[in-house]
Amino acid sequence: MKLYDGGRAPNPRRVRIFLAEKGVSVPLVPVDIMAKDHKTDAFTRMNPMQRIPVLELDNGAVISESVAICRYFEELFPEPALMGSSPLEKATIEMWNRRVELGIFSAVAASFRHAHPAMRDLEVPQIGEWAQANREKAIEMMRFLDEELAGRDFVAGDSYSIADITLYCAIDFCRLPKIEMPEELHHLKDWYERMAARESAKA
Amino acid sequence: MKLYDGGRAPNPRRVRIFLAEKGVSVPLVPVDIMAKDHKTDAFTRMNPMQRIPVLELDNGAVISESVAICRYFEELFPEPALMGSSPLEKATIEMWNRRVELGIFSAVAASFRHAHPAMRDLEVPQIGEWAQANREKAIEMMRFLDEELAGRDFVAGDSYSIADITLYCAIDFCRLPKIEMPEELHHLKDWYERMAARESAKA
Repeated sequence: MKLYDGGRAPNPRRVRIFLAEKGVSVPLVPVDIMAKDHKTDAFTRMNPMQRIPVLELDNGAVISESVAICRYFEELFPEPALMGSSPLEKATIEMWNRRVELGIFSAVAASFRHAHPAMRDLEVPQIGEWAQANREKAIEMMRFLDEELAGRDFVAGDSYSIADITLYCAIDFCRLPKIEMPEELHHLKDWYERMAARESAKA
Repeated sequence: MKLYDGGRAPNPRRVRIFLAEKGVSVPLVPVDIMAKDHKTDAFTRMNPMQRIPVLELDNGAVISESVAICRYFEELFPEPALMGSSPLEKATIEMWNRRVELGIFSAVAASFRHAHPAMRDLEVPQIGEWAQANREKAIEMMRFLDEELAGRDFVAGDSYSIADITLYCAIDFCRLPKIEMPEELHHLKDWYERMAARESAKA
């Protein structure tokens, strides 16, 4: 199989960290978004959504959407479980992963895509007011998560999961739209430093 | 267990249809969004995201996020499988469910929330330009899905899945922001009529 990958972009990174935590190695094919490699006819035939990452299996089957790709690897390599084991764990991790996706990951992405000059040709129309609303939403979600992380070590409970990966990539991606974590959010900052210290963070 | 439910709102409906397809019955507790029932202290303690639906288990555990609730029931009652059986099926259904969520479900919701007078106090700030961009995105996704459905009976392949539920609820919800399916999209229209004819559509 091959993983079509996109360097610093946050979605491909989620999958790379997930694979590193699983100890699974997959050949990467670089896709340069700024050069619009994801808009070519060949890429569009593979993923009509024109997004990365994309996993291509040896039988030609294609899986896009980061979490769907993670799900595939979770099923193939159940240990360590990053999406839960019992029904309640699976549901709780999915809940937190989605809360983080909707509350901060997509907010950071929107604040970047709708305001950064480099995205002018890729996000049409860019809506500055929407970028600003999402900056505020991202900060608000950081405050909420800071309170949650006062009481536990990981986003979805007592163990590391895909929800930690999603939040870590979201916070790291804040550098591009220049969203700063408020200094008083010590629990979130401590959690972030623990995540950054994991070997998988280099992926 | 109890399912905090929200009548005509599209997310609670996804879960009700999912349960109907599983043949599972759960007591419903109505939550009136227009009366801001989801903003009360009691509700916020249960789900700090202030969103419905929410599943409360007998042991007090709480699961929010529609797809996380569906995941819980899929794990408890695997048949009929609505989220796939093999690793590739699970990943493919997750991929399509997310494509539909990102491409049309959330677009229809945004075009409603950012333009409808009834949402003025619930979506702050309302951004008209964002509502309009999402109307166009929803129609574009309908055109894409119409082509896909020319070649198969269901969104994610040969069998009914959660991706069909998400798309069905998205298209039904188009009535509120008055987004009309273009007449020439016969495959999508036929698929919609097949979904509407299922017993679960009454849920």
